[in-house]
Amino acid sequence: MGASQRLAILGAGDVGRSVADLASEYGHEVVALADSTTATIDPDGIDVAAALDRKLGGDDIGADDPTAVFETDYDVLVEATPTTLGDADPGFTHAKRALETDHHVVLANKGPVAERYGELRELEADSAGSIRFEATVGGAIPILSTIEDSTPQAVTAVRGVLNGTANFILTRMAAEGLDYEHVLAEAQDLGVAEADPTFDVDGTDAALKFVILANVLADGGFSLEDATVEGIQNIPGSALNLAAEDGRTIRLIGEATRDGVRVGPRLVPENGALAVTGTRNIVQIETRNAGSLHSSGRGAGGPETATAVLSDVGRLPPL
Amino acid sequence: MGASQRLAILGAGDVGRSVADLASEYGHEVVALADSTTATIDPDGIDVAAALDRKLGGDDIGADDPTAVFETDYDVLVEATPTTLGDADPGFTHAKRALETDHHVVLANKGPVAERYGELRELEADSAGSIRFEATVGGAIPILSTIEDSTPQAVTAVRGVLNGTANFILTRMAAEGLDYEHVLAEAQDLGVAEADPTFDVDGTDAALKFVILANVLADGGFSLEDATVEGIQNIPGSALNLAAEDGRTIRLIGEATRDGVRVGPRLVPENGALAVTGTRNIVQIETRNAGSLHSSGRGAGGPETATAVLSDVGRLPPL
Repeated sequence: MGASQRLAILGAGDVGRSVADLASEYGHEVVALADSTTATIDPDGIDVAAALDRKLGGDDIGADDPTAVFETDYDVLVEATPTTLGDADPGFTHAKRALETDHHVVLANKGPVAERYGELRELEADSAGSIRFEATVGGAIPILSTIEDSTPQAVTAVRGVLNGTANFILTRMAAEGLDYEHVLAEAQDLGVAEADPTFDVDGTDAALKFVILANVLADGGFSLEDATVEGIQNIPGSALNLAAEDGRTIRLIGEATRDGVRVGPRLVPENGALAVTGTRNIVQIETRNAGSLHSSGRGAGGPETATAVLSDVGRLPPL
Repeated sequence: MGASQRLAILGAGDVGRSVADLASEYGHEVVALADSTTATIDPDGIDVAAALDRKLGGDDIGADDPTAVFETDYDVLVEATPTTLGDADPGFTHAKRALETDHHVVLANKGPVAERYGELRELEADSAGSIRFEATVGGAIPILSTIEDSTPQAVTAVRGVLNGTANFILTRMAAEGLDYEHVLAEAQDLGVAEADPTFDVDGTDAALKFVILANVLADGGFSLEDATVEGIQNIPGSALNLAAEDGRTIRLIGEATRDGVRVGPRLVPENGALAVTGTRNIVQIETRNAGSLHSSGRGAGGPETATAVLSDVGRLPPL
């Protein structure tokens, strides 16, 4: 395990709150927690339970201003604000400020890593701090650290299912013979799909993750606009019935290589590795020397994603 | 990626040779390669290709004595000599010498880690060097680093198939309706089973791996004699036919928790995660905060196991 680190957490949604909640279990201290309007900051460690109570009670997290987070003494900025595309702000600028002042940055926010990867790596090169972003791809499944330990050069492709919402919908459509609209409504009731599910069902969320993977394999060069993306909104229930007659089903599959990124619905063998069920994710990492590694697990969720953030924190060197 | 390390490799079987062969791809240098009787040593880096040619041609690896390896300048001892039980020597003593002289040790040899875990950790505590042993469990599949990054305390159990020879035999018995002896002979012809397959078919090899996992979860306390072990030698072909009628099959499944280790043939769903086929391995890592992580891949083989060794080398700090 790495040294104990002081965490400044930006973002108090499911992931930010879970990171705050689990930090002490991993031997780390939370010195700041902020949402978009309020913050609680204490260089000796905040009262996490009290802050979470206030947030869940609808009150201000604390009396501090979020911008004051950057002035406090911390080791690692945890960037867990909502993913934004294009300029990827405010997340990108948060990461930039932390790196320019020689802090580490651990991202759960996909935006900066998918859209401005090269700039992040340049800022990192000029900083005493490092960036890590396991939590941006596949939740609890250790995909990026596996690629890192294998060395990216030894990995030829990464393929799989990285959006649990779309996978849940397709699983239920096939299992129950129901149509897309019906199952989407069920998913929203269960909290598996958001009120606005667009990024999950149109393939954007999966594409961001595979763009991040392509950036890791190729050391940059890709953003969302480079990906060829098709979602699941137009799949009729009949397509799944037809596939089943052939022992197959449909999954939203993505693939990243050094040459590019594709995401779209594909026919896969019903009992094969890629036909993961419900909200589970799976990746197949193709390597030069060790064949194909498959990893599956929970791809999303507060605690699940927090374990990826804290895993990254554990791999940071002391500043 | 970690710093470039100088590797002294003990063992010139499939794993040792593959580590030597792949070291430069990972940015490391080989300063010594030894089998049980001969060695080649060069503090500026050995000629790996020439050494491998000599070994595969049946000649001495070099003009040096294997004991001289410990006198040379190196950073990491790669212990890839054959697994031995009980006192786990000479492997344990090799690791001890390296640690006592403040070198790192990366083991592919299961013996010391399964049988004398506590002593290894004590030697490590008194050393500037660290021990790592990903290659002892599950070949190319990053199991121990996943547990390490999740923190062992957050992992409640590890279960799965960790012997590819036994798994291949059971897969073929089920697929072809053949009996054990017949399929074992086929496996030996293919090189999947050794001339003396005892440790693979009686469950010892799998048990050593699950003992290592239990030692990691509980920080020591287990050796092979603590494991409850049953092999596959007595499974009649009819058992597999019967299982198939129920949509199930038989696999040699192991489980490690903080309380102990069990290995034995189990009925599993035919299309479930544990019914991995051929020589592939799979583990299910049960975690407190992130549900169940499944990882599968090639559990054995020279290059496959070498990637685990080199992955470990990459995670060592500079001495």
